[in-house]
Amino acid sequence: MSKPRFITFEGIDGSGKSTQARLFADYLSSAGQDVVLTREPGGSPGGEEIRQLVLTGDPQRWSAETEILLFTAARRDHLEKTINPALEAGKTVVSDRFADSTRIYQGATRGDLRNMVDQLHSLMIGREPDLTFIIDMDPAAALARGLARQSGEDRFEDFGLSFQETLRHGFLGLAHANPERCVLIDGNRSPEQIASEIAAHA
Amino acid sequence: MSKPRFITFEGIDGSGKSTQARLFADYLSSAGQDVVLTREPGGSPGGEEIRQLVLTGDPQRWSAETEILLFTAARRDHLEKTINPALEAGKTVVSDRFADSTRIYQGATRGDLRNMVDQLHSLMIGREPDLTFIIDMDPAAALARGLARQSGEDRFEDFGLSFQETLRHGFLGLAHANPERCVLIDGNRSPEQIASEIAAHA
Repeated sequence: MSKPRFITFEGIDGSGKSTQARLFADYLSSAGQDVVLTREPGGSPGGEEIRQLVLTGDPQRWSAETEILLFTAARRDHLEKTINPALEAGKTVVSDRFADSTRIYQGATRGDLRNMVDQLHSLMIGREPDLTFIIDMDPAAALARGLARQSGEDRFEDFGLSFQETLRHGFLGLAHANPERCVLIDGNRSPEQIASEIAAHA
Repeated sequence: MSKPRFITFEGIDGSGKSTQARLFADYLSSAGQDVVLTREPGGSPGGEEIRQLVLTGDPQRWSAETEILLFTAARRDHLEKTINPALEAGKTVVSDRFADSTRIYQGATRGDLRNMVDQLHSLMIGREPDLTFIIDMDPAAALARGLARQSGEDRFEDFGLSFQETLRHGFLGLAHANPERCVLIDGNRSPEQIASEIAAHA
């Protein structure tokens, strides 16, 4: 039996990554793997408590630095309570977002934060996924889809199209810089076509 | 007019540091200074929200590492929203606990955490008080006083006397290592005697 894997899905809001994470987890399950599907921020009871603290109420009440600390606290809890125990039990873990989201979103907000995010990750998390699917998509289409959804938690959609384009380029750069674990997926197709391509990497 | 100062009070639970912080703030106010009295964890609306997250509910649900991240997030918010604005407005800030508490309490829980706390402080806080009063007190007497208070928030009192002694030695070592900002105060006296000695350092 192969080593249990930690697989993440990344991309801008509205790129379809949550749908694809679910479809991929279903695919692996139907192929007989024991799969845990999780998400960030959140993914553990404590992580969800911290998610609520960051994403509800006035989002402007936290500075970027405090937000990074809270996301890292939630991630540490998620790793300790959900991800690591599942991997140790031989399960495959599929997560909708992980550390790459903090790198790209906070880095896009203020360029000088990227180094801080990386140092904090190295100090307090110190773990990368074994495989990351980056769903690349036309920012205007993704933004329209995200706005239609109105989850109330996608705070970054208010920043408009140029911010979405900055995010897209951030994710493309990340895929380019980490070819050993990142697979770039064209998200401008039907969910079934995309899922079929991703399944080929299982 | 002298530069506005950031002054902290540290010591084990039950050492009387909260009382002394308040008496010193009153003394400075009566001497004509504009003083902000604050505390940690907490000290700002966001910091208090995080304090609630850490100190209420089952304290065992957070690992030491997640707790350090949450305390650092609360401290960052406290610094940005309360301490720095007050200093910039020319006020004196007196805080009941600050970063030294995290260093000593978490370090006493597990020795390997001290380095992590220091690195996290350097990366995300990067500021020390101008003056720190460390109230030193007999651990058995402090423990009895703390237990009598039953605030429900002094989680460490459950660890017993030997833990309190470890904390005491941690604070003594901190005072010894940072003589440029730390003043060691003998807390085994009446509150009035202690306050009088502290006032002499104003």
